[in-house]
Amino acid sequence: MALTKEQLKDIETKLVELAAKQVGPLIKEHAGTQFEAFDDKANQVDLVTAVDKKIESIIKQSLSTLYPDFKFVGEESYEEDHTVIGKEPTFIIDPIDGTTNFIHGYPYSCTSMGLVENGVPVCGVVFNPHLDEMYHASAGNGAFLNGKPLKVTERELKLQQSVIALEAGSERSSGSSGDDNFDIKQATYRNLLSDQGGYIHGSRSCGSAAMNMCMVAAGKLDAYWEGGCWAWDVCAGWCILAEAGGIVVGGNPQEWEVPVDERCYLAVRGGCSQPAQKGFVKEFWSHVAGKLKYRW
Amino acid sequence: MALTKEQLKDIETKLVELAAKQVGPLIKEHAGTQFEAFDDKANQVDLVTAVDKKIESIIKQSLSTLYPDFKFVGEESYEEDHTVIGKEPTFIIDPIDGTTNFIHGYPYSCTSMGLVENGVPVCGVVFNPHLDEMYHASAGNGAFLNGKPLKVTERELKLQQSVIALEAGSERSSGSSGDDNFDIKQATYRNLLSDQGGYIHGSRSCGSAAMNMCMVAAGKLDAYWEGGCWAWDVCAGWCILAEAGGIVVGGNPQEWEVPVDERCYLAVRGGCSQPAQKGFVKEFWSHVAGKLKYRW
Repeated sequence: MALTKEQLKDIETKLVELAAKQVGPLIKEHAGTQFEAFDDKANQVDLVTAVDKKIESIIKQSLSTLYPDFKFVGEESYEEDHTVIGKEPTFIIDPIDGTTNFIHGYPYSCTSMGLVENGVPVCGVVFNPHLDEMYHASAGNGAFLNGKPLKVTERELKLQQSVIALEAGSERSSGSSGDDNFDIKQATYRNLLSDQGGYIHGSRSCGSAAMNMCMVAAGKLDAYWEGGCWAWDVCAGWCILAEAGGIVVGGNPQEWEVPVDERCYLAVRGGCSQPAQKGFVKEFWSHVAGKLKYRW
Repeated sequence: MALTKEQLKDIETKLVELAAKQVGPLIKEHAGTQFEAFDDKANQVDLVTAVDKKIESIIKQSLSTLYPDFKFVGEESYEEDHTVIGKEPTFIIDPIDGTTNFIHGYPYSCTSMGLVENGVPVCGVVFNPHLDEMYHASAGNGAFLNGKPLKVTERELKLQQSVIALEAGSERSSGSSGDDNFDIKQATYRNLLSDQGGYIHGSRSCGSAAMNMCMVAAGKLDAYWEGGCWAWDVCAGWCILAEAGGIVVGGNPQEWEVPVDERCYLAVRGGCSQPAQKGFVKEFWSHVAGKLKYRW
């Protein structure tokens, strides 16, 4: 039996409270203080700190008390437990999204707390304590920024006149390493930007997938294309975007429906018709310079 | 006879007031409302609105009353008058830096008001009304954010562990157009990011040169490399950065000293020793993939 709209709103409210009272203050307090104390994970630009781990354990503890029957997937515990995302209600959490920003003091680190049911993001809270921006939503209840409904300005959506979030990310193996994701991403950026290609208005990079999803949700960005991030980077933002009229499809061409752990995504704003969104997606895909493949 | 420290502080205070009371509110009010009403300048991604022009005329009017003997260079009037930057005190103004952001509602549009004397930036005010961030400085008087001294955390500066602002910009001619600036920039980004190259912690792009300069000044970014922007994009931020212990050199290798209208720059944060800054610059330059050349 699916969670009701009312139950989801209650979960959203609890997550907002947890983000505002416990997680946000910790992120704000420790941002820029961990430069001598970070570790690398997959490689020397994929970073983690003790604060990421501490916050994840606080969230996990709190949610397991409030919702003992729900499963939990967190960025920092995933490596150990490899929890599979199934049909049951499952929290998907990034304690600090934008850890590199957190370490350097760039003001785009946030907490990202999502919930999926039947594989669909049904609740999401993203809180950036530096900008004091709390984005929150749940299925059927609309999307909000600091308690006010997110209003996306109605306007045409054209690839050439768009501003798109494009991130270098942390997977940057070039040449002989066996995959060519980095090369495909760089070539795609070039295709989108060049006056011989998409010639888009511009690209932006804030270093946080969750914040990019929220800025697309708010219509401040037209789209966000990503390869290499994880379910916890996008789950919360996905629900917020969907409630604000946006869509998420695959980062690779022809993938109109993708699971939350696809690792390659194209997020597109609302404020326009569905045919306009689909047309945008097709035109975007025509610039993708190869098939992105990420390993688990 | 050069302007005194006290005179410069007074000019700084006047510019802060102008930015806070007149310019900032106009930028905030009109951001995101000009999507149906922008024009292009040099090409279809180099944009301007009536608000840019209106704000420039307000600033020009106000400064010509306060400082009738000073020269004035503004982004929107430059095309007509081509004022040369000489030794006299000269205001160098971008009414709205980040016009594409302003049009799209991405929260990185700001006003940028600088003053040069003998070609050196001696006063600078950058105000982002969306984030309510007023960066201000004058020569010998220190750098401030919203009236509080900018404190840059002391820490090592290493290229591999740096986060650097890199922008696609609006000059994106590829191939047959005669210059290869776009290609050189893209190749340089690749060199910096790749695990076979600089393998830096990350790149960020907010779409505003003035905001990038200020975030380097504040130590939120380690550096900002740019080709193709103009004196009005960097003048104010340059003074703020210098007062916060940072340096500006040329974007092309071996250019240790460049004029404010060089159009190619590398800005590097303070909070470390001068030899560390110079070592960083040299290592950065080793990744630059060709000589950038911009026409006037």
